[in-house]
Amino acid sequence: MINKLVEKIKKTEAPIVVGLDPMLNYVPEHIQKAAFAKEGETLEGAAEAIWQFNKGIVDSIYDLVPAVKPQIAMYEQFGIPGLIAFKKTVDYCHEKDLVVIGDIKRGDIGSTSAAYAVGHLGKVQVGSNFYAGFDEDFATVNPYLGSDGVKPFMDICQKEKKGIFVLVKTSNPSSGELQDKEVDGKPVYEIMGEMVDKWGSECMGDSYSYVGAVVGATYPEMGKVLRDIMPKAYILVPGYGAQGGKGADLVHFFDKDGLGAIVNSSRGIIAAYKNEAYAKFGAECYADASRQAVLDMKADIQGALK
Amino acid sequence: MINKLVEKIKKTEAPIVVGLDPMLNYVPEHIQKAAFAKEGETLEGAAEAIWQFNKGIVDSIYDLVPAVKPQIAMYEQFGIPGLIAFKKTVDYCHEKDLVVIGDIKRGDIGSTSAAYAVGHLGKVQVGSNFYAGFDEDFATVNPYLGSDGVKPFMDICQKEKKGIFVLVKTSNPSSGELQDKEVDGKPVYEIMGEMVDKWGSECMGDSYSYVGAVVGATYPEMGKVLRDIMPKAYILVPGYGAQGGKGADLVHFFDKDGLGAIVNSSRGIIAAYKNEAYAKFGAECYADASRQAVLDMKADIQGALK
Repeated sequence: MINKLVEKIKKTEAPIVVGLDPMLNYVPEHIQKAAFAKEGETLEGAAEAIWQFNKGIVDSIYDLVPAVKPQIAMYEQFGIPGLIAFKKTVDYCHEKDLVVIGDIKRGDIGSTSAAYAVGHLGKVQVGSNFYAGFDEDFATVNPYLGSDGVKPFMDICQKEKKGIFVLVKTSNPSSGELQDKEVDGKPVYEIMGEMVDKWGSECMGDSYSYVGAVVGATYPEMGKVLRDIMPKAYILVPGYGAQGGKGADLVHFFDKDGLGAIVNSSRGIIAAYKNEAYAKFGAECYADASRQAVLDMKADIQGALK
Repeated sequence: MINKLVEKIKKTEAPIVVGLDPMLNYVPEHIQKAAFAKEGETLEGAAEAIWQFNKGIVDSIYDLVPAVKPQIAMYEQFGIPGLIAFKKTVDYCHEKDLVVIGDIKRGDIGSTSAAYAVGHLGKVQVGSNFYAGFDEDFATVNPYLGSDGVKPFMDICQKEKKGIFVLVKTSNPSSGELQDKEVDGKPVYEIMGEMVDKWGSECMGDSYSYVGAVVGATYPEMGKVLRDIMPKAYILVPGYGAQGGKGADLVHFFDKDGLGAIVNSSRGIIAAYKNEAYAKFGAECYADASRQAVLDMKADIQGALK
């Protein structure tokens, strides 16, 4: 799947992943109204609203980008109906041949991580049958528990040709509270980067590893260091746009071939119509605003990489 | 909810939480057969099997223990049907007045953690209505992202009188790869313990904080240190029984009043009938074996605390 991701990035010339993280207040009123008319102001109604919202965006951008990244928390907050909308979104993105990165940030002791890996990237056995629970292509993984918590994901990645992105340096303001602490003169994020490089060497695709890393756009200098520490890891870069990262900050995350990184934008794309720059599209044409925001982001990144 | 947990521990004299982490191969054949006859060898069939299995155990042990801890990964591996079984289990345990600790190990950037907190401990707004997605009483939280990722859970805890257990020192063999690394002569788990103590001081119940910690039974010496660092934190102690922790190892996790800790056993209780010591019960009476295993665990811990 890392090979497919790299191929699609080359083909679209857009190292961009669209974060499908719908808050209900991003969903235009006409979609909310229709969903509530059908299902009531219920969890099912909310789930219908975010699913229709997502579908509009996917239909509008699927030819421009290689991948999408639904953040499962935004669905999980609506309980079971929300998770059904998550699964519908994953399945629909596959129909559109998009690579789906499940932003699930799971991680646990070995046997438990194995269950998450099976549920999100693999197939679970029931009697003599096998079923994929959610069937994303990639998942994000939290490494706080060490190798035990990551290895079961690697096993499934090798079996199913899927991939993971391990949290190394996250984009949020307080990420340094633990991740920047120095151990023998070396920050924790570098130590995690070295672990990603080691894990990754055990699961190589053609040019890059099945084991990638998450490094926030908001910390470009650390991105530069981590790029060198993990030469074979694809870096998933959140924090562009709404969180404050700019195109010029991103160059350090890429390697000299202009590959090796994929930049996520969520709110900046899916809620573009709420941004002054795209207000002319209006709420009815929210998906067109999202398409324009992708094109602008592509130009920004291509400009920075030149 | 921390007050309720402490009251129930005093009343049952059992600082024990039963981990409802059903693997399909723990479920006795007669339950699997009945479930598959009803739903086929499908995800729905697997979900029905683990739900019926759980129900049998809960009916058999609910009067003995204060709390249960369903591990959501074990349900999530069966996709949507599995998560419906998770929710049924949570709801049923509430009917039996058990405190429910959702072992979800979530944690993300602020806005995303807020969505998890709402989905698992709070209520989400849809139009003018509010709904609880999963409605556990406590959740486990991963602190790799720092305060940003924990604070939204604390906000919901204060609003809803619920609680969290933050991962400090986990029970698995590789937990030390990150958690034991020394920062200025102090291991990461101590630093996290200090953060839990600080966070906890902002959310106090009557005697203990809404913010507890996870510290594995497999590391008793570290438990002793962490007990002192976090005097107001309830410690959730996994790793007893099947993972190798023994009653004598547990004394350090409790304070001088014999409170301050609650010990989890999963496989050792729910799959007790597969253990030689309880084989006489047989698969048909698996729930009676679980009841006996709880009674034995209670005696082991009470003996150690004397």
